[in-house]
Amino acid sequence: MKILRYSINGSSYYGILGRDGNIERLKGSPLEGLQPAGYVDHLGSARVLSPLYRPRVFGLGYNYRAHSQEVGKSTPTLPVLFMKPSTTVIGHEESIVYPPDGENVHFEGELTVIIGKEARHVSEADALDYVFGYTCGNDVSDRVFQRRESEFGCLLVGKGYDTFAPIGPVVETELDPSNLHLITRVNGEVRQNGNTADLVYGVSALIAYLSKYMTLLPGDHIMTGTPAGVGPIKPGDTIEVEIEGIGVLRNKVLSATDVTP
Amino acid sequence: MKILRYSINGSSYYGILGRDGNIERLKGSPLEGLQPAGYVDHLGSARVLSPLYRPRVFGLGYNYRAHSQEVGKSTPTLPVLFMKPSTTVIGHEESIVYPPDGENVHFEGELTVIIGKEARHVSEADALDYVFGYTCGNDVSDRVFQRRESEFGCLLVGKGYDTFAPIGPVVETELDPSNLHLITRVNGEVRQNGNTADLVYGVSALIAYLSKYMTLLPGDHIMTGTPAGVGPIKPGDTIEVEIEGIGVLRNKVLSATDVTP
Repeated sequence: MKILRYSINGSSYYGILGRDGNIERLKGSPLEGLQPAGYVDHLGSARVLSPLYRPRVFGLGYNYRAHSQEVGKSTPTLPVLFMKPSTTVIGHEESIVYPPDGENVHFEGELTVIIGKEARHVSEADALDYVFGYTCGNDVSDRVFQRRESEFGCLLVGKGYDTFAPIGPVVETELDPSNLHLITRVNGEVRQNGNTADLVYGVSALIAYLSKYMTLLPGDHIMTGTPAGVGPIKPGDTIEVEIEGIGVLRNKVLSATDVTP
Repeated sequence: MKILRYSINGSSYYGILGRDGNIERLKGSPLEGLQPAGYVDHLGSARVLSPLYRPRVFGLGYNYRAHSQEVGKSTPTLPVLFMKPSTTVIGHEESIVYPPDGENVHFEGELTVIIGKEARHVSEADALDYVFGYTCGNDVSDRVFQRRESEFGCLLVGKGYDTFAPIGPVVETELDPSNLHLITRVNGEVRQNGNTADLVYGVSALIAYLSKYMTLLPGDHIMTGTPAGVGPIKPGDTIEVEIEGIGVLRNKVLSATDVTP
């Protein structure tokens, strides 16, 4: 089932998207159960929003071998994790704002997992029971900042600018995450062409690992890392992340000077 | 003024703490204004909670020169930042849980800034207008994990275990953060004896820096980094972080096996 958050006339709702573009509006958050509100909206008159408002976002580094090779890193011996601030998150068709001082900002198409219920000390075998669903994500990264911070063993600004986490457009709740084709296009040209079968740490392993150390909360996002093919973006570009069974997340890059402060 | 969050009979409130131990209960969150609820509670019958429930927490690395020296790092050329998950936060007198596989877990006493209103592109000159207040924090860190993650330029688990961010006991809203004596004691023995005058990047600079790249939100915590003297903790230890003008944050360390799952 495909669930989305959307706004109509300034009010935001969750709903279940049908093949015909009709949206069965839900009462409240789908994380608390799927209760129909008794209204049907239509995708054509709705603005799609990020699946969750300001979620916690955990990101993965070097989780595809071919990507680790292209950036000259060895495959890590443990999941390499960081957080992206909740304020990085934007929805489908919202604009990625290119930083005024940006020099080398990259796209990173990624399968993104959304946690459905509190998880602590969860085994790999049980891990998928804690997933609400899957969506597309773009872990936009400022490589200059990333390098400067990583020299000191930390990472925030390089992954953390406002708008650096496009997420969406919908959450697919029934999906096997272990073998999904992932494509990233820049201005229509395919730049990443990967498959989640190549994840070093797959979805179950990541949930088991994280929940061993910390409590995962409903709505938490795990961006599972990016396959090979990353590259720079610039103002004017359109980036699309398409994942099999989910859909296409599309975002345009705007110059900061084009954005009203 | 000293503001605290506390619970009485299972309900939680904010209040203003008087010198006599009386608490003037507030309506709702003090981030939305200080409206008296018309009740007076007493500290003796209240349980102190962390100032905010599950806030965003930004942490600083290597922000005191003497600490950078003791761990063999050069002073960074930019603020070195990471996030601690909201689930790390515990309050005064709550227990730090020592990880079952912990080998070298350290205390880090830190001045912690709480943001009062949304901040974006704020100048150093205006930065303190965006502060709600100041409290004590302990940036508990698993050095083994920190090192393993930092080799890959990231940091999460090493700073991110549940209970690894004791914060409190109160938020002092009227304080000059530029020259505050900070002491950390382990089992009564002074281990850190620093002053915020020695911060490489002070409070105003940190707010200006962060808000240049991302939107700071009301309730956000900035743990400003730790002075020299860090060292290991073990189950049974009591850690106190005392900051001039704020008070004493006290937390006992428990073994994970002593904690009911």
